[in-house]
Amino acid sequence: MQDSKNSKWFLDYFSPSEGHMHGIRTIFSSKKTKFQQMDIMDTASYGRCLVLDHKMQSSEADEFIYHEILVHPAMLMHPNPKNVFVVGGGEGATVREVLRHKSVERCLMVDIDEEVVMLCKEHLPEWHAGAFDDKRTALKFLDARRYLEETDDIYDVIIIDISEPVEEGPAYLLYTREFYEMVNKRLSAEGAIALQAGTTTPDRLLNLTAVHKTLMQVFPHVVSMQAAIPSFGLPWGFTLASKQTDPRKLSAEDIDKMVSSRVSGPLKYYDGDTHQMSMHLPKFIRKAIDEQKRIIEDNAPIFTYN
Amino acid sequence: MQDSKNSKWFLDYFSPSEGHMHGIRTIFSSKKTKFQQMDIMDTASYGRCLVLDHKMQSSEADEFIYHEILVHPAMLMHPNPKNVFVVGGGEGATVREVLRHKSVERCLMVDIDEEVVMLCKEHLPEWHAGAFDDKRTALKFLDARRYLEETDDIYDVIIIDISEPVEEGPAYLLYTREFYEMVNKRLSAEGAIALQAGTTTPDRLLNLTAVHKTLMQVFPHVVSMQAAIPSFGLPWGFTLASKQTDPRKLSAEDIDKMVSSRVSGPLKYYDGDTHQMSMHLPKFIRKAIDEQKRIIEDNAPIFTYN
Amino acid sequence: MQDSKNSKWFLDYFSPSEGHMHGIRTIFSSKKTKFQQMDIMDTASYGRCLVLDHKMQSSEADEFIYHEILVHPAMLMHPNPKNVFVVGGGEGATVREVLRHKSVERCLMVDIDEEVVMLCKEHLPEWHAGAFDDKRTALKFLDARRYLEETDDIYDVIIIDISEPVEEGPAYLLYTREFYEMVNKRLSAEGAIALQAGTTTPDRLLNLTAVHKTLMQVFPHVVSMQAAIPSFGLPWGFTLASKQTDPRKLSAEDIDKMVSSRVSGPLKYYDGDTHQMSMHLPKFIRKAIDEQKRIIEDNAPIFTYN
Amino acid sequence: MQDSKNSKWFLDYFSPSEGHMHGIRTIFSSKKTKFQQMDIMDTASYGRCLVLDHKMQSSEADEFIYHEILVHPAMLMHPNPKNVFVVGGGEGATVREVLRHKSVERCLMVDIDEEVVMLCKEHLPEWHAGAFDDKRTALKFLDARRYLEETDDIYDVIIIDISEPVEEGPAYLLYTREFYEMVNKRLSAEGAIALQAGTTTPDRLLNLTAVHKTLMQVFPHVVSMQAAIPSFGLPWGFTLASKQTDPRKLSAEDIDKMVSSRVSGPLKYYDGDTHQMSMHLPKFIRKAIDEQKRIIEDNAPIFTYN
Repeated sequence: MQDSKNSKWFLDYFSPSEGHMHGIRTIFSSKKTKFQQMDIMDTASYGRCLVLDHKMQSSEADEFIYHEILVHPAMLMHPNPKNVFVVGGGEGATVREVLRHKSVERCLMVDIDEEVVMLCKEHLPEWHAGAFDDKRTALKFLDARRYLEETDDIYDVIIIDISEPVEEGPAYLLYTREFYEMVNKRLSAEGAIALQAGTTTPDRLLNLTAVHKTLMQVFPHVVSMQAAIPSFGLPWGFTLASKQTDPRKLSAEDIDKMVSSRVSGPLKYYDGDTHQMSMHLPKFIRKAIDEQKRIIEDNAPIFTYN
Repeated sequence: MQDSKNSKWFLDYFSPSEGHMHGIRTIFSSKKTKFQQMDIMDTASYGRCLVLDHKMQSSEADEFIYHEILVHPAMLMHPNPKNVFVVGGGEGATVREVLRHKSVERCLMVDIDEEVVMLCKEHLPEWHAGAFDDKRTALKFLDARRYLEETDDIYDVIIIDISEPVEEGPAYLLYTREFYEMVNKRLSAEGAIALQAGTTTPDRLLNLTAVHKTLMQVFPHVVSMQAAIPSFGLPWGFTLASKQTDPRKLSAEDIDKMVSSRVSGPLKYYDGDTHQMSMHLPKFIRKAIDEQKRIIEDNAPIFTYN
Repeated sequence: MQDSKNSKWFLDYFSPSEGHMHGIRTIFSSKKTKFQQMDIMDTASYGRCLVLDHKMQSSEADEFIYHEILVHPAMLMHPNPKNVFVVGGGEGATVREVLRHKSVERCLMVDIDEEVVMLCKEHLPEWHAGAFDDKRTALKFLDARRYLEETDDIYDVIIIDISEPVEEGPAYLLYTREFYEMVNKRLSAEGAIALQAGTTTPDRLLNLTAVHKTLMQVFPHVVSMQAAIPSFGLPWGFTLASKQTDPRKLSAEDIDKMVSSRVSGPLKYYDGDTHQMSMHLPKFIRKAIDEQKRIIEDNAPIFTYN
Repeated sequence: MQDSKNSKWFLDYFSPSEGHMHGIRTIFSSKKTKFQQMDIMDTASYGRCLVLDHKMQSSEADEFIYHEILVHPAMLMHPNPKNVFVVGGGEGATVREVLRHKSVERCLMVDIDEEVVMLCKEHLPEWHAGAFDDKRTALKFLDARRYLEETDDIYDVIIIDISEPVEEGPAYLLYTREFYEMVNKRLSAEGAIALQAGTTTPDRLLNLTAVHKTLMQVFPHVVSMQAAIPSFGLPWGFTLASKQTDPRKLSAEDIDKMVSSRVSGPLKYYDGDTHQMSMHLPKFIRKAIDEQKRIIEDNAPIFTYN
């Protein structure tokens, strides 16, 4: 009777009354690091997965969707990105996508949790695909906000690849107007940034819409994009902000040309058509962004799951 | 300790090793009809829900996404749809959206399960919103395929709103080339159809891509669209097939003008921008459609969950 | 695929990391009363169930075990019980078992939650089996402790049939030395009491052992008994305290004779042999009782699930 | 929010609509052996556990209950057991308990699954506690029934420590009259056997009662015993069969004396009082045994979970 049934499960709770169930094949590593609970497991439906504080971060089967939509639109906003800064990005897949851009000379990744990065490097080799060992990559284990406050470096693109703002975690201070102003100061004149901005589920749009409006205080061009990452269980939003290029002005052909000349290796998710799709949001999300007045600030942060 | 925790759950399994968990507030009706197991329940995250054979069909919080993307693109393919045929559509929300189109004179809904329709009418009034009592609506409880075989009626739009093809159920014969040819014969010269075509999750694209290719055997214009319906737990695909109008040729402005003049009441999901989004699919889905060679036929059907 | 699988579940959590899963057939009533969350549901494995604050209270399939072991040993401690007091006992099954004793002239049940009692009366008729309408039964909806403080009544047997002591609930003040002293004062010279005392799981014996030792401060004869009530998911303990009769002195034959002459209707769980079994505990439980020094007092209460 | 919640679970299904949920801390080994699915995991509530074919076999927190009640009553039926045969017993804890008996000169364990035994030896050292390396222990990886058919050895005690009879597994032929006759032939004149016989849940007593009646065809003294092993989620039955000694004739003092003189090391579950408890069953179980007429035979086997 039990043979066809999975008996080991990872339950990814979105709230006390909703979640996504993943059958576990085995667990490679389960550890309480200095900063968070980390699990690397093999699931029946999505293969290997990184789970932080009981939330799915990325899976073998669909991490390409997350990492391509996070990285490539932002990279293409800049005509010739050489210096890239990745905030967070533990698994190394964000750096992997950055390094596909032939113009890149240096990619600095600053993640707070060395243990997570080291265990991902060991157990999730397809995620980094050697990116940690690329001579263009620099890796620091620091609080990214403090690093930005203290550095004089200038970057062409900054990718913010961090988990959701929760009350106990340090991430929430990486979602505020003050932080985005700091980011803006460290960007070159044609620079752009991108980040994941939470779910696009109706009635749960506070995070996405407030991030969008907060970024509009700091950047002239702000676009939010929706992507379906099935292992997340809920549809997801990403926000792109740029100093000069308006991403909605680029045609499918423009994007396809740039990808073809500037990016090495075939992409699986992103191209001109995907860009067009991403530049349009469903009506109810656009309406929610329009109506949102909340600006996220250090002393008025937003916490997911509250 | 338990107070903050939901103790009653609906587990919507996508496979023996994956599912979506919905906290139940209460169950309004739980019944084994002649055709299927039916549950109407109130969930904490999505409000009231219709569940057939243990699978979420639609929820109070996001049924608008499902029903708007299913109905409106197809309706707008025809310049002046008067006669509409809804295959299935138990909850009545598909008819509700059809009746928003001012040109409609008659909408016939044929559902096999009278008990489900009657219980939805009682427990889910916002779904039908009076559509069953509209004088333009006709309702028959029959096998839709047999009805189509025997009728001489001609329709301008046919909306196929049925559950997934499973081995035990009758729905699988409503996904074959032979059925689509029958549908095509009953469509007027500028007619169009739409249907839900299963998940767009990578590696689970067989249903969507085979439906798409099968429809291409019968219709000149076929477009698949992706929509995020969070209560489904996985991203979902819809396919639109049209005899004359190519939906990809319509601009956002064209759509907005048609919606404004032809549709009564405000839509929440669909408009010109949403149409543009829907006309583009992620690269991996387009590639999977291109590479799919399978044509679904009566004697070579496809079953989900096999 | 899903047909053989239950999709609606009641999860009875024993802790954040353990619980018992019950497939739900349907829910008859789900209500937040003035005092607690109440659910009356039909489960696949145990039939109808009463669930209070997300914890199983009793099930159609095995409530006979709970109610017989709670009531009959205490009743037989007294040679001729006429007046019986039931503290709590919402479903009415405790009164049902009390009324089987032919000597009983009056059984007063004091439960704090009128809504629970009324809904049990409606949905769980086999539990009370008419006991609420028996002319010997009196029913009051009050705080039982306050009632005991204020009354001058004397009872031959007092059955304490309440839920576990939790921090938010009022029940915890019905588990203290002060309360047991109050109970003792209202008992006649040959009186006895019984109560459920929590799980007998190794390493979770605090409640049972402290209740046992607290009762020993007040009563000369105290015996704890273990019973397996499968719907509870964990083995359970009951404690019996008596003013005169030592229950361990009664042989199987003694019990069988008393049951035969004093109790009407056949019992399913309790008889002389079951009594012998109940008078013996596994070695590790006896050892834990011996070693327990904690006395539960009003200003030093015990809370389960802390 | 998620911190207090377990997100990794082992669900031990008793049927498609009931089970016990165990929060997983980590998984040490997950493997499909030649015979079964094996998982060794660390759970929050019961510590390390062996799980075979998705069913809990034994846990760190309460394996002492299972192994003591399985081994010691049978050992004490024989006045001086020297040769002991353990059928199954993968974890090594059954042999560990056998070896506590000072009279034992040789203990042969025959388990079909070498991989399980080797992984238990590595990951569950407290279970075997060195028993595999004791010079009195012999270990063979064979089908136990075939071994018994072919051997001429005579044993004083035979402990049958195998999983439940399921249709796919080989265990069901170790629950039949023919097998018990074979066992009986290999027992010395004062020999005894013991085995686990399934749950004692009301309405699920077929296995226990039929095993009991089948053993009565072969042995003069047969006693079934109930034990609460919380990690099993349901109460459990064990059956003891003896050629000469009637276990119900032994007083608590007899048992305590024998344990004291013959067994080394302190026991945690079993002693004279526990023996008395074990010699008595609840009334409904005795009645079900009395009424059972089914004899299990090779060509009329019983399967759990059918």
